[in-house]
Amino acid sequence: MRRQKNTQQMKEQDKNPPDLTNEEEIGNLPEKEFRIMIVRMIRNLGSRMDKMQETVNKDLQELKMKQATMNNAINEIKITLDRINSRITEAEERISDLEDKVVEITTAEQNKEKRMKRTEDSLRDLWDNMKRTNIRIIGVPEEEERKKGTEKIFEEIIVENFPNMGKEIVNQVQEAQRVPYRINTRRNTPRHILIKLSKIKYKESILKAAREKQQITHKGIPIRLTADLSAETLQARREWQDTLKVMKENSLQPRLLYPARISFTFDGEIKTFTDKQKLREFSTTKPALQQMLKELL
Amino acid sequence: MRRQKNTQQMKEQDKNPPDLTNEEEIGNLPEKEFRIMIVRMIRNLGSRMDKMQETVNKDLQELKMKQATMNNAINEIKITLDRINSRITEAEERISDLEDKVVEITTAEQNKEKRMKRTEDSLRDLWDNMKRTNIRIIGVPEEEERKKGTEKIFEEIIVENFPNMGKEIVNQVQEAQRVPYRINTRRNTPRHILIKLSKIKYKESILKAAREKQQITHKGIPIRLTADLSAETLQARREWQDTLKVMKENSLQPRLLYPARISFTFDGEIKTFTDKQKLREFSTTKPALQQMLKELL
Amino acid sequence: MRRQKNTQQMKEQDKNPPDLTNEEEIGNLPEKEFRIMIVRMIRNLGSRMDKMQETVNKDLQELKMKQATMNNAINEIKITLDRINSRITEAEERISDLEDKVVEITTAEQNKEKRMKRTEDSLRDLWDNMKRTNIRIIGVPEEEERKKGTEKIFEEIIVENFPNMGKEIVNQVQEAQRVPYRINTRRNTPRHILIKLSKIKYKESILKAAREKQQITHKGIPIRLTADLSAETLQARREWQDTLKVMKENSLQPRLLYPARISFTFDGEIKTFTDKQKLREFSTTKPALQQMLKELL
Repeated sequence: MRRQKNTQQMKEQDKNPPDLTNEEEIGNLPEKEFRIMIVRMIRNLGSRMDKMQETVNKDLQELKMKQATMNNAINEIKITLDRINSRITEAEERISDLEDKVVEITTAEQNKEKRMKRTEDSLRDLWDNMKRTNIRIIGVPEEEERKKGTEKIFEEIIVENFPNMGKEIVNQVQEAQRVPYRINTRRNTPRHILIKLSKIKYKESILKAAREKQQITHKGIPIRLTADLSAETLQARREWQDTLKVMKENSLQPRLLYPARISFTFDGEIKTFTDKQKLREFSTTKPALQQMLKELL
Repeated sequence: MRRQKNTQQMKEQDKNPPDLTNEEEIGNLPEKEFRIMIVRMIRNLGSRMDKMQETVNKDLQELKMKQATMNNAINEIKITLDRINSRITEAEERISDLEDKVVEITTAEQNKEKRMKRTEDSLRDLWDNMKRTNIRIIGVPEEEERKKGTEKIFEEIIVENFPNMGKEIVNQVQEAQRVPYRINTRRNTPRHILIKLSKIKYKESILKAAREKQQITHKGIPIRLTADLSAETLQARREWQDTLKVMKENSLQPRLLYPARISFTFDGEIKTFTDKQKLREFSTTKPALQQMLKELL
Repeated sequence: MRRQKNTQQMKEQDKNPPDLTNEEEIGNLPEKEFRIMIVRMIRNLGSRMDKMQETVNKDLQELKMKQATMNNAINEIKITLDRINSRITEAEERISDLEDKVVEITTAEQNKEKRMKRTEDSLRDLWDNMKRTNIRIIGVPEEEERKKGTEKIFEEIIVENFPNMGKEIVNQVQEAQRVPYRINTRRNTPRHILIKLSKIKYKESILKAAREKQQITHKGIPIRLTADLSAETLQARREWQDTLKVMKENSLQPRLLYPARISFTFDGEIKTFTDKQKLREFSTTKPALQQMLKELL
């Protein structure tokens, strides 16, 4: 505001210059008047100059001061920028370190993933190995063994279904029990009976005879005899059920191999796959197969 | 410094204006003197103006120059700011990527955690399964079997404690050995003897008879017969010992179920818990139970 | 450009001051001419001052305007800097959070690493435990058992090599099979035969007899009888082979302990190491040992 007023004053002075347009008039002025007029004019000019100098100086001072202030601000900004650049550089280094560590962790994760898979597979094999002399009997009511014990039920099944197999195999039972140990009251199907035999060959001969006879019964009621596999193997096998069914309908002669590989005949060759992912990849090159399995993989 | 000097000079000129205050004097000056005085005054004004113009120009030039310099600085700062903003934006994107990856890793970690727990539980079950026909004999001095072998000690214990059980069970021993295989010289208690029997039922009948007889001895010295459990199951069971003791004192009829679940009667109902965390949560709603177990959970 | 022109005009005016150097001439001028000259001079000075004021004002206005613009720019820069500082602070906090999480993950990783190692070791022990009654027969052609079955081959080997051992041990065979189950057509060595015996002691007596006889044959062809160990234990043992050889040559009486620990006599003491890392650390304090094993650890 102050600056504006100064400029205003200067302009008003400009509006009232002495009237010196008529040279004739000037020549006719009495000497004394002329002298006084001239001196006043000079004096006016001098004071105009003083005022101008004053206002210009004020303006200049103000400009310089502001410039100094701004210069300081710029210098401070530069310092701030340096500090910011350092912070960013530091942050970027921390980010790079983190990225390196995340790569390390991811690599370690993948390595662990492989080890865990290997451990899980090994454990599954071990369970299956432990269970390889077992037979599972499915469908015998829980009440049956109340009096006579579980082993007796196995004996009855052998006598009822495989009369030629004889007493010898019954003596090979090492354990006979319901599984799981506790009754789950929410399930209304009887628990399975697990029979542990002394040797694989006894299990195999019973299961072979059961496959040949097709219909197995206990006291006339249909039951099932199966191999005993780990929960993991059973789950993996269950996932192939639909695929096996469709392949059978299409005469691909599918079979499940241990632990849960699918094997079938295609274009005259026997193909084996460990998982659906691998089968899907293969089927992309075989339109007929892809069409057949389109909703299963 | 230079600017200051200029301003100083201008002020000194202001101090010596021609003395024109007395108009009478001016009117009385001789013509020639007046003329010379006037011309000098005008000349002085002119040179004042020159000097003023010069110093003002200098100041203005300097201000403009500095302004240009500052303007350049500001433009450079703006460029720097753009560069900084880009760096920050890039850094923020890298941080976001890292955050996404850390979330992925954490999810994978939790998944692995579950798989590891499942694997560990399965392995523990497998060990317990392997050990389910075993009996541990605790307290027989190491020297005993020097001559006669470990199996003989088992036979002696059966004869000494369960004379009615007969020779048959002794023939069911599949393995008899001290565990661990190596003697730890820092422990001065004898190693346990591990007896592997052919069937679970033999183990169970021996342990049942031992519980009924309460005091078991070998050559008159008290010993203990226990089931053989995996290290993990034993550890998990050990953690319930204090709780079992307190519950027994308070007639809650506590029992340990396989592998390490605690079961007890409370408010007329049988409650079962797999770990202390779950029992603690339950007890928060039962002040009496909470009070009873306050230092155990 | 405009500013430069103004400055230029002012300088040209300076070049043409009225010629007032000669005071005599001034005194001799006719009155009217003098008056007109003086008035013109004053008028010129006045208009010079006007112009100067105008150009200076222009310059000042311009400087002020630019200063205002720059001031705005500086204020905007400060706002930008504040925003940048906030962004950096936020980014730094996110980085710190990430660093904390990465530390957590790394700790969890190390914990998992230990658990996995423990699980793997436990699983390895379990496999070895399962296999501890097994004998591996290496080198019998695949065709041999076509007619007579795998168990018969074991019987033939016992009769051919250990005639005094008698029929009893042959009756202790629980399983006899080729491993792996499937023939790998890329390998042209016969698969191993795995014999599972009923008790450890039968395995031990056969392996002891085999070590004493040194050369074992089947139908005159050299074969090998070995203990059956898990793949993991075998691999770990294989890694000590070179070290065992060198230690034997240097009479350190090295032995492999279960599962894969090396034991040897050094400076009259028996030393045992679970892995090469530990042996390397020990050897750094024993120059003779270090020299001996320098290319093996």
